[in-house]
Amino acid sequence: MALNSTVKADANAPAITEQLANFVATHPSQGWSDAVDAEAHRTFANWVGCAIGPSAHETVEAALAAVQDLQPAAQASLLGRREKVDIASAALINGISSHTWDFDDTHLKTIIHPAGPVAPAALALAQHLGKSGRELIDALVLGVEVSCRVGNAVYPDHYDRGWHITGTTGMLGSAAACSRLLGLDAARTQMALGIAASQPIGLREQFGTMTKPFHPGGAARVGLMSALMAKHGYTASKRALEAPRGLMQVFSDKTDWREVTENLGGPDGSWEIALNTYKPYACGIVIHPSIDGCVQLRDAHALTADQVESITLKVHSLVLELTGKKTPADGLQSKFSVYHSCAAGLIFGRAGEHEYTDEIVNRADVLALRAKVTAIVDDSISEASADVTIRTTDGRTLHLFVQNAIGSVERPMTNALLLAKFAGQAEPVLGADKTARAWALSLGIAQCADLNDFFASTTL
Amino acid sequence: MALNSTVKADANAPAITEQLANFVATHPSQGWSDAVDAEAHRTFANWVGCAIGPSAHETVEAALAAVQDLQPAAQASLLGRREKVDIASAALINGISSHTWDFDDTHLKTIIHPAGPVAPAALALAQHLGKSGRELIDALVLGVEVSCRVGNAVYPDHYDRGWHITGTTGMLGSAAACSRLLGLDAARTQMALGIAASQPIGLREQFGTMTKPFHPGGAARVGLMSALMAKHGYTASKRALEAPRGLMQVFSDKTDWREVTENLGGPDGSWEIALNTYKPYACGIVIHPSIDGCVQLRDAHALTADQVESITLKVHSLVLELTGKKTPADGLQSKFSVYHSCAAGLIFGRAGEHEYTDEIVNRADVLALRAKVTAIVDDSISEASADVTIRTTDGRTLHLFVQNAIGSVERPMTNALLLAKFAGQAEPVLGADKTARAWALSLGIAQCADLNDFFASTTL
Repeated sequence: MALNSTVKADANAPAITEQLANFVATHPSQGWSDAVDAEAHRTFANWVGCAIGPSAHETVEAALAAVQDLQPAAQASLLGRREKVDIASAALINGISSHTWDFDDTHLKTIIHPAGPVAPAALALAQHLGKSGRELIDALVLGVEVSCRVGNAVYPDHYDRGWHITGTTGMLGSAAACSRLLGLDAARTQMALGIAASQPIGLREQFGTMTKPFHPGGAARVGLMSALMAKHGYTASKRALEAPRGLMQVFSDKTDWREVTENLGGPDGSWEIALNTYKPYACGIVIHPSIDGCVQLRDAHALTADQVESITLKVHSLVLELTGKKTPADGLQSKFSVYHSCAAGLIFGRAGEHEYTDEIVNRADVLALRAKVTAIVDDSISEASADVTIRTTDGRTLHLFVQNAIGSVERPMTNALLLAKFAGQAEPVLGADKTARAWALSLGIAQCADLNDFFASTTL
Repeated sequence: MALNSTVKADANAPAITEQLANFVATHPSQGWSDAVDAEAHRTFANWVGCAIGPSAHETVEAALAAVQDLQPAAQASLLGRREKVDIASAALINGISSHTWDFDDTHLKTIIHPAGPVAPAALALAQHLGKSGRELIDALVLGVEVSCRVGNAVYPDHYDRGWHITGTTGMLGSAAACSRLLGLDAARTQMALGIAASQPIGLREQFGTMTKPFHPGGAARVGLMSALMAKHGYTASKRALEAPRGLMQVFSDKTDWREVTENLGGPDGSWEIALNTYKPYACGIVIHPSIDGCVQLRDAHALTADQVESITLKVHSLVLELTGKKTPADGLQSKFSVYHSCAAGLIFGRAGEHEYTDEIVNRADVLALRAKVTAIVDDSISEASADVTIRTTDGRTLHLFVQNAIGSVERPMTNALLLAKFAGQAEPVLGADKTARAWALSLGIAQCADLNDFFASTTL
């Protein structure tokens, strides 16, 4: 992710994290003076008294009641797995899982991945409370509306500064969805949003590590717990979002309040979830037009790899800057290779996560076709487009100019393509039969009166 | 808390939190078009597939293993109570409790309350792992060093902007302390700090609500979970603190790296915990010199309330601005009354939380004495000082100028005063015998080989 040049940044900071880690891991026990050790004991003793004193205070009672709502532990399902865990942990784990391949949905106005923090929290709570699919989808719509509207109000400044906006607004969406499912009134919902406002999660610095998918999962958990705490009477500022020292002014210089207030809950067209998009390919967005061109030509002409003599791409320079890796060694590197991506697209007709495994990247037919892909820079072509020419071994020249890739706002994924994507992910885990049922139940979840049916098809 | 005038703030923002809460709580089910509802279903279905696909990925496995470390649930004690909960919840609840009366410790350089986020996490984990008191206190020293040094590097800009620095650095201290107790190596400790870095907790806007004490508790929980996740191989950026889009540059314009790196783990005097201070009185710091003067004169002259004709204070104007409430109606208001505070100090010889209850505030002898307190503004007197004159019914004039109140860096609390404060909080909960043992064990925790002894004295 390129840094925004308007935001100051010191790229030469010393390795603070590493130094502190070394210090913590290796400093000897009692490696300080007796005076320091004595002060440490005074610190501890004073703290103990301060914890005992208010231990029956309503603040403690409310927080403890929320924690005890999590017990017993086996409350909610983990998609694709056998285990059950408590609802807060289910929100966390399902949220992590859904962003692990960075293959989920995108609200393009803000680059928020809207479902990740909201859906897992709502799903876990709906399961536990025995709610219907209709109630679940209502909570999802309202939760996404809250997080994306707050995102609209602070984007791009907030994101440019380095926050991972999915997790830093997502806890509000999760709190909203969970408040709704719990049937909290407006006053308690306000408290839930307020409690969540103190807990934004996510830094862009984490991209490329497991902590990136943690962000939506953590935000899902935070929102769910905030709603539970509010249910039990826990309080927060009534102006936790908008006050001068509230969340939005604290973490963003841009705060366009109208993005939140105007036409809230208004007629069609103003709902943020209606602007959602879905990635067809499990790689960076700039390669998508090229893959799309290869897949379209393949399907239109029933092409197989051995019929291809060459694939020639004309693309914007940014495409090769970001994804110009000619000979990726493994799955991770292959996500940054337009060459591998086009070869995989032509051979498999898709480029999901399974086309980016170490095995596929080094398969003989993939390597052979990859060597036949050439890319030429042409900055007259937008980075959202690609010009694809395939020469066949029998002398044909097939050409396609892709203005907008599938999955863009201009060319949304059809339900058939969404199903193909769903199956590509779910079949290796659930098998074909369960996957078919899981898809039907997911796409018609509002008609599902008993969510146990849904979980029977989506878990092991 | 006064706003820092150098930080821009819009005090006239619309009531976003309330509007969103009303919207979430009251918008009708399916109160949008069929097209929006269909997109909501596509969002959900796509999300389900994305959650199932990577459900056996190492990212999910590591996070799930950390969550499963929390089970079975009854792992750790709650101070002053009977219940046991999981270690993460114990960190949360004990952390909340210890800051509920805002009566805990203060690192004056940064206004961080250092123990709140670190001690409860370390205590819960030490209990669960069967660690010794020595290991516990080591973890506390190292954890406080990490959070306060990061605080030093970003204070005051970070705080001025509106972050509650206790919870926004505390998760690092908690992660450090828990990594230490888990015996993580430097590489995994670095990951723990990195995971925690994505989860700063706390806004100053929450002051006056239950979410303020949530901040240290939440930070304690975050740090503990980050360490558990790192133990199981969860990854984060190696430069999560210092990178251009890492925590410190993202949430503060001031990043003085030397505050972290210089003399880290060095000889005596450089340890942050040695700079810790403890509040003697359960109210705002500006009243402390006046109370201190009354208590000192009371003790020196064995004064009782009926011997007092008048108490005259000369104080800085800020004291009356912040705490000039003449006739507080209840306990909460009385914390903002220098009049009540001085009357209570003279009658009880102390001003702990129990001197700020509704009952005490309205007791006849307190009301009578409160009416005899006069305060005069004198800006030649520092806000850290107070000039106290008591006239007695037998015609004496007793005078004391308090340069620095007890509990300041210049006049630290003695252990005897700390014990009195401890007993004031613990005796109503635990009784006198247990309180005496709890104090002795707390102040000598490094000699406590079996923490079960400590918990036997600090819980019901």
